[in-house]
Amino acid sequence: MTWAESADFFGQRGERFAENVRNYYRYCRSRDLFSTHAIVNPQTDRSKGSHQHDDAFAHLGVVEETKDGLIVRGAKMLATHGPTADELLVYPQPGIREGEERYVLAFGIPCATPGLRFICREPFDMGNQSEWDHPLGARFEEPDAVCVFNDVLIPWERVFLYGDVKMGNALFAQASIRNHTGHQTAIRGLAKCQLVTGTAIAMTRAIKSDSFLHVQEQLGELLAYLQLIEGAILMSERNAEPTGRGAVRPAYAPLQALRYHLPKMYARMVEVTQVLGAGGLLVNPMEADLRSEIGGDIARYYRGAGVDAERRTHIFKLAWDITGTQFGQRMVQYERYYAGDPVRVGAGYYLDHNVEHLLAQVERALKGSA
Amino acid sequence: MTWAESADFFGQRGERFAENVRNYYRYCRSRDLFSTHAIVNPQTDRSKGSHQHDDAFAHLGVVEETKDGLIVRGAKMLATHGPTADELLVYPQPGIREGEERYVLAFGIPCATPGLRFICREPFDMGNQSEWDHPLGARFEEPDAVCVFNDVLIPWERVFLYGDVKMGNALFAQASIRNHTGHQTAIRGLAKCQLVTGTAIAMTRAIKSDSFLHVQEQLGELLAYLQLIEGAILMSERNAEPTGRGAVRPAYAPLQALRYHLPKMYARMVEVTQVLGAGGLLVNPMEADLRSEIGGDIARYYRGAGVDAERRTHIFKLAWDITGTQFGQRMVQYERYYAGDPVRVGAGYYLDHNVEHLLAQVERALKGSA
Amino acid sequence: MTWAESADFFGQRGERFAENVRNYYRYCRSRDLFSTHAIVNPQTDRSKGSHQHDDAFAHLGVVEETKDGLIVRGAKMLATHGPTADELLVYPQPGIREGEERYVLAFGIPCATPGLRFICREPFDMGNQSEWDHPLGARFEEPDAVCVFNDVLIPWERVFLYGDVKMGNALFAQASIRNHTGHQTAIRGLAKCQLVTGTAIAMTRAIKSDSFLHVQEQLGELLAYLQLIEGAILMSERNAEPTGRGAVRPAYAPLQALRYHLPKMYARMVEVTQVLGAGGLLVNPMEADLRSEIGGDIARYYRGAGVDAERRTHIFKLAWDITGTQFGQRMVQYERYYAGDPVRVGAGYYLDHNVEHLLAQVERALKGSA
Amino acid sequence: MTWAESADFFGQRGERFAENVRNYYRYCRSRDLFSTHAIVNPQTDRSKGSHQHDDAFAHLGVVEETKDGLIVRGAKMLATHGPTADELLVYPQPGIREGEERYVLAFGIPCATPGLRFICREPFDMGNQSEWDHPLGARFEEPDAVCVFNDVLIPWERVFLYGDVKMGNALFAQASIRNHTGHQTAIRGLAKCQLVTGTAIAMTRAIKSDSFLHVQEQLGELLAYLQLIEGAILMSERNAEPTGRGAVRPAYAPLQALRYHLPKMYARMVEVTQVLGAGGLLVNPMEADLRSEIGGDIARYYRGAGVDAERRTHIFKLAWDITGTQFGQRMVQYERYYAGDPVRVGAGYYLDHNVEHLLAQVERALKGSA
Repeated sequence: MTWAESADFFGQRGERFAENVRNYYRYCRSRDLFSTHAIVNPQTDRSKGSHQHDDAFAHLGVVEETKDGLIVRGAKMLATHGPTADELLVYPQPGIREGEERYVLAFGIPCATPGLRFICREPFDMGNQSEWDHPLGARFEEPDAVCVFNDVLIPWERVFLYGDVKMGNALFAQASIRNHTGHQTAIRGLAKCQLVTGTAIAMTRAIKSDSFLHVQEQLGELLAYLQLIEGAILMSERNAEPTGRGAVRPAYAPLQALRYHLPKMYARMVEVTQVLGAGGLLVNPMEADLRSEIGGDIARYYRGAGVDAERRTHIFKLAWDITGTQFGQRMVQYERYYAGDPVRVGAGYYLDHNVEHLLAQVERALKGSA
Repeated sequence: MTWAESADFFGQRGERFAENVRNYYRYCRSRDLFSTHAIVNPQTDRSKGSHQHDDAFAHLGVVEETKDGLIVRGAKMLATHGPTADELLVYPQPGIREGEERYVLAFGIPCATPGLRFICREPFDMGNQSEWDHPLGARFEEPDAVCVFNDVLIPWERVFLYGDVKMGNALFAQASIRNHTGHQTAIRGLAKCQLVTGTAIAMTRAIKSDSFLHVQEQLGELLAYLQLIEGAILMSERNAEPTGRGAVRPAYAPLQALRYHLPKMYARMVEVTQVLGAGGLLVNPMEADLRSEIGGDIARYYRGAGVDAERRTHIFKLAWDITGTQFGQRMVQYERYYAGDPVRVGAGYYLDHNVEHLLAQVERALKGSA
Repeated sequence: MTWAESADFFGQRGERFAENVRNYYRYCRSRDLFSTHAIVNPQTDRSKGSHQHDDAFAHLGVVEETKDGLIVRGAKMLATHGPTADELLVYPQPGIREGEERYVLAFGIPCATPGLRFICREPFDMGNQSEWDHPLGARFEEPDAVCVFNDVLIPWERVFLYGDVKMGNALFAQASIRNHTGHQTAIRGLAKCQLVTGTAIAMTRAIKSDSFLHVQEQLGELLAYLQLIEGAILMSERNAEPTGRGAVRPAYAPLQALRYHLPKMYARMVEVTQVLGAGGLLVNPMEADLRSEIGGDIARYYRGAGVDAERRTHIFKLAWDITGTQFGQRMVQYERYYAGDPVRVGAGYYLDHNVEHLLAQVERALKGSA
Repeated sequence: MTWAESADFFGQRGERFAENVRNYYRYCRSRDLFSTHAIVNPQTDRSKGSHQHDDAFAHLGVVEETKDGLIVRGAKMLATHGPTADELLVYPQPGIREGEERYVLAFGIPCATPGLRFICREPFDMGNQSEWDHPLGARFEEPDAVCVFNDVLIPWERVFLYGDVKMGNALFAQASIRNHTGHQTAIRGLAKCQLVTGTAIAMTRAIKSDSFLHVQEQLGELLAYLQLIEGAILMSERNAEPTGRGAVRPAYAPLQALRYHLPKMYARMVEVTQVLGAGGLLVNPMEADLRSEIGGDIARYYRGAGVDAERRTHIFKLAWDITGTQFGQRMVQYERYYAGDPVRVGAGYYLDHNVEHLLAQVERALKGSA
């Protein structure tokens, strides 16, 4: 949506690119297509730019232009739901250097395009988990994939941006992408943080460890994070700004603040939940055990404070699924890297920030004493 | 103001208390009086309640009731600006136990009341600091004091609350005090945080250490805190709630979240500023040196990146005044303890919080898999 | 071994208990038996003591004494390798309160004793993991279990301690158990920390992200922890003390310092490894994929810096197995709680510590200025 | 001492340099001279090398060689006790780049050498503090200074190293300087850490706040750090290695681990002490007040738990002097930067470390599963 609204940005290199973006938006909208995206280069050698690798197509780049479109080769990561989505969106992120023209590419193609292959990571749910034992992992596993392009044709009408380093670096900001992805990232993050906090509370109540002062403080810490997150989202909406193209977009500054801090808060919440769950996270039997001959022993010895053994075990299962399983740890890692390397997110936030009002405050402090 | 608006709370024990509160508010307002307050008991023995000390009046309590008012004896801390204010407000904080009736007291009296003495801590500015050398400390030192009551008469018309443990514990919440003090605490904290962040930026720019990635990240971290603080304040205003007495008050939850997290953010900002200032914080000459025969050497060797030696030194002086002087460290400690023991602030936040919507979310996660 | 050496401790309640301990040691040694242990009460209701539960045998306790031995009922956790071990050792930990006599019990019995049941948690390796995909988890999974005693007879010759709160609280210190378990805990922890650190280094070298300053710093931080751990172990050996019974034991103070800090270091190492692994931890295909028709694409696009795709993937698999799988997160949790609740470990360390030399140092600082 | 022992290192550029070092050592030793040192370049513009500044002598460098010696100009920091020492030692630190030959300099000269000037920072003790009020600051203030060289002649017999980038970078390691300075840094750090820990304990005991679990945990955390520090020092001595010149030096690895971690531990200790001191750090009257007419009030209301008001106040004064005064905060900053920028200390630790045994461990983990 923000792409179509920002079509004039793409139009800088020719009106047909603007038109491509608008048409693609209408196409996806009218068919209600499910889209994934891949925007990061494979790690290969992090000390080198895309153009400095021995293999010129280690990272996705253009092999040649034809009258039908661009022939592209190489790999991009990390497309979540790659194999199950309808469409794949590829676009560049800031940080592109001179000489990397060949690798500046924005386009959208069907996932089923010939020559395009999704190589998935090992599945975390092999299909043999009970939903009771893994309340989240058995239901919500999302495959992550590397996209490999073996000389794939990107038809001209699906090319949005190509070969322009400056535009590649500007896209994220100028097409409002950072605003809109930032907003959905924050909303998604808030929902996850609420679930972790609620689970930590339910868990400690199940064994009344929430009667201890230091446990209460940690739960208070988590609850307070939720308010900070919600407040920043609210501010992004309250300070929404016109795009200059007839729409508004949520303010960038509070959203990007969450991009930096929310993954740290989330990791902290997961850690606190593990710490408060203690050994109880490592003793939970399986659903099948509850219905077996040992069910009686479980019913007697796995009880909590005012909750029966089945209920207590189920809550602890949920806590482990959030904090200790591959599903849970992937979520931690996913939030951490969804917005790119946190060090660069923080650094970029400083570099992009208008700090004049802060420096003016410093000036007043100095002047008063001059 | 919130006291007068909540006069009916005080009226629970007799209409005259409500009247006292209203009159006191009008009195202070019409004379534009400057008020300080003291609400914490002296540390003495933290393992004991007020009523368990050998000296029954180690903590401020009532000696006797007379027809003119209450005779009170004992000490309260920490009255900032005690000796320079017009009026002193004393009121109880939550956490009072049965048996401590004698110590539950809310009243307002002139600082100049006979028998009332303010014992100040050692001044941090002995009057010999140049404003240039200590841009903040030489101008904004605030004396902190313990209030000692040697059988002071509190006239009945100045007594607002007395002897009721339940009301003493409820006052903070029910009279909206926690909302309004929370709001001003947050605004004050935001202003301080902005000054520290601005100073850290000005300082690193003065020596271009902000060209390093890891320095940029730390500045980004600080800038992002500012957004979280501002967002939570905004949310407290956006979610303002009716007091039921014809006024509104800012929402408690986001403000209390700041009460817990803002002092930690502030301490972190001070730490980052010290880390980024490095050895440069420990070599600054005095204003007098700049004007002396060694002024030439200083001009040559204390230069920064694009700023002259005087400017660079002045910025680093400000940074040290915020982070390394008694003035600066008192601010850290003041924010940390303004709202009471952070452990109890966090714990209380959990205990007071309505978490039903979070537990409902847990329930949905469990139900889906039942 | 330390039990036998401390037999006189057990002998305080009768020489036969000392004899039992000595015989049991010889018995296990001569048969080379593999022993597990269970020393923590189930969580049930953490706000209550063992004797305050509705079910008097929620926690393991004595039902009656018979001429053959003690009949015990209830549960203990957390016996790692419970079902595969030969013998089970049960003993009390400090923190027992008056009134809990019935629950003070030390004994050793065969795991195959009638009426004793081990209820295992859900296995993390269901037997379908390739060793290449899970270099650790597919080989070293350790089952954790709750031990349930359904009126189990503990023969008198296997009872070591019974019904004495004071001795129950003293056992850990006076029988040198805390010294010897502390030593093995530290050695085990060091080995794990070395493996994580080595893996983090191998991983960043595989993609040359170790060319960045901030990555180098984090690797330096990890390497430095290893020295702190090794130094404390060395000191415990260097300051070994006579037990007064003809043997020596490693010094307690440095070992207990590791008990508090090592799990935090370990969790930090795991976190750093995840942060440095970034998205690369979430894209690894399975061994079978390498040998399949997509092997060529993997070979081309999963290469690292000077290492081929198979090698790079294998290293990242190891990193994920340490940090992101249930196997890896269980290790984090296991280290965190092996020595009991960290808050109480830290608190107990203070309460047990001889701090006279530190207070003397304070005295000198004060005296010099008196 | 380590300089003389490593004289052959300096001899690589001519035997006379070796001779200079040996003579200087004998000279200082026989006269029992007190030496300071300055090894860091002024901050000026941190994005530039010494040779890239507009002013070629912003950083200390050689103006010309004469038959009598080198004429040097520019500034070096941070010489503690500069003006009160006998001799000044200057030497290069690792990190010198090609092109900076002119700035590679090691020499030792009298502090009273003509043309050499020490510009001190503002004193923290203006001579008006009572020793009772400032038990440390009024007695142990150490002036820090920038050394300015206005065309100072360094006689040839006092030149130890000059103009060799490679040797400048190697000096720290090859002349065992990092070992010996690391050892004294660690010993000094341990003593400071012991004093802070002791003070935190004395302070909490004075008001019995050490009866709370979460306070106990924090004191345990601090005590445990002391063991880690002591252990690493012990290991450096236990693993002392021959220099190849007939002496031994303490092992580098554990000492450098402390260089990285000890300042963080120290800052943490200071923070914990502030947190535990709470408002009590901000209410202490002056010594003179105790002897004045308000002495009675102080005696009554500043008492602690089993300690009188004077004692309690004195302990809190010490705690504030360590944590809140310029004296105290300078110590935090001094430890933080004594060994150079912590980020680079950590990074260098990784780059210098022999990690073969760790990588071998990784190999075993991978091989077992190959």
